Amino acid sequence: MTTFRIAVIGGTGPQGKGLGYRFARHGHTVVLGSRAAEKAVPVAEEVTARLSGVEGAGEVTGASNADACAGADVVLLAVPYDGHDELVATLPLEGKVVISCVNPLAFDKQGPHGRIIDDGAGSAAESAQRIAPEATVVGAFHHVSAVTLWGEADYLDDEDVLVCGDTAEGKAVAIELARSVTGRDGIDAGKLRLARQLEPLTAVLISINKRYKAHSGVRISGLH
Amino acid sequence: MTTFRIAVIGGTGPQGKGLGYRFARHGHTVVLGSRAAEKAVPVAEEVTARLSGVEGAGEVTGASNADACAGADVVLLAVPYDGHDELVATLPLEGKVVISCVNPLAFDKQGPHGRIIDDGAGSAAESAQRIAPEATVVGAFHHVSAVTLWGEADYLDDEDVLVCGDTAEGKAVAIELARSVTGRDGIDAGKLRLARQLEPLTAVLISINKRYKAHSGVRISGLH
Repeated sequence: MTTFRIAVIGGTGPQGKGLGYRFARHGHTVVLGSRAAEKAVPVAEEVTARLSGVEGAGEVTGASNADACAGADVVLLAVPYDGHDELVATLPLEGKVVISCVNPLAFDKQGPHGRIIDDGAGSAAESAQRIAPEATVVGAFHHVSAVTLWGEADYLDDEDVLVCGDTAEGKAVAIELARSVTGRDGIDAGKLRLARQLEPLTAVLISINKRYKAHSGVRISGLH
Repeated sequence: MTTFRIAVIGGTGPQGKGLGYRFARHGHTVVLGSRAAEKAVPVAEEVTARLSGVEGAGEVTGASNADACAGADVVLLAVPYDGHDELVATLPLEGKVVISCVNPLAFDKQGPHGRIIDDGAGSAAESAQRIAPEATVVGAFHHVSAVTLWGEADYLDDEDVLVCGDTAEGKAVAIELARSVTGRDGIDAGKLRLARQLEPLTAVLISINKRYKAHSGVRISGLH
């Protein structure tokens, strides 16, 4: 297994913290990033405490978002969509594999639905790629629930991680990192623009969660 | 179990024929519709032949699309998106539960992706509801592959049917009909507008099928 040094941008939010915990649990080095380092440090300590006794766990530290990126091989964008573009523009992402799990959603009286980006011809992942053209952006980890990530199970072995991107190299990193979450490779779901489909699917899962009082996820049948 | 009389519009296409076969296999009466009755009749005979020896199977006949609708409780729209709106406008759908499994997709050098409807604020199912305001339109059965539907297995028990709609009554029909396909209730996935998310997810499955040489489907984890 390759051991990555992963910066989690938005690492103090539930999705970022949960994924950081999963990656570190399976040996990767994780830097949780936040707007201010002093916000990230206590969350890193909380994750470290949760990993005590887990053999082979990677180190988890906290830093400012930009400092977290600086030393990382892989940058996970786990931020809300509001302010996403402005934040991405400030990060040193050149030459890095950037994994976006950003879910642009909107909520109203009818419940959750996908936020419409670029009149339906865009997604958060594509925006990140446009803003950081020298990075390799892939989309992945949109559908794993924060609650399940933070749980005690070694793997979320009933879920799949769907990975989209325009280069095999970028996708290979996310496909391998998925093993830390589900215990098996992520699924190559095609080109980056399919993030238009993967990101708002989370609105469907939230809707199902409300209706069934569950923490639902996605599994692809017919492959295993 | 309620026994429905189901008209399948586009019943000679692979998705419509496969779903019609599944519904009849589990006791429902199916009328496969096509532009011309004489195109539908031989396909109905083919499905009937495939059901020979299946105890309790429902009758399968062929008719023109409009005639198929006339006597039906439930109308399944299983047509290509090209020409969809014009066709729906010709059908007598008033007072009926209309299930749309229409997948508006586009294909180019980069592969499949979701076709953009109403600048991202629409879907085939929503278009059908707008064109036929006195029908109860729900979206369901988007993700079951035609090949798997036409197979010998009694149930596709590794897949889920996701159902979206704005009335509980409409959704209840599709949720029950899902039992003929998967062996269990369909999943209530929320409001009709979430068809914007369900329909183009099929582009992701097609992309996965190409990459893995598979017939993939969707399963929701965390509920069962």
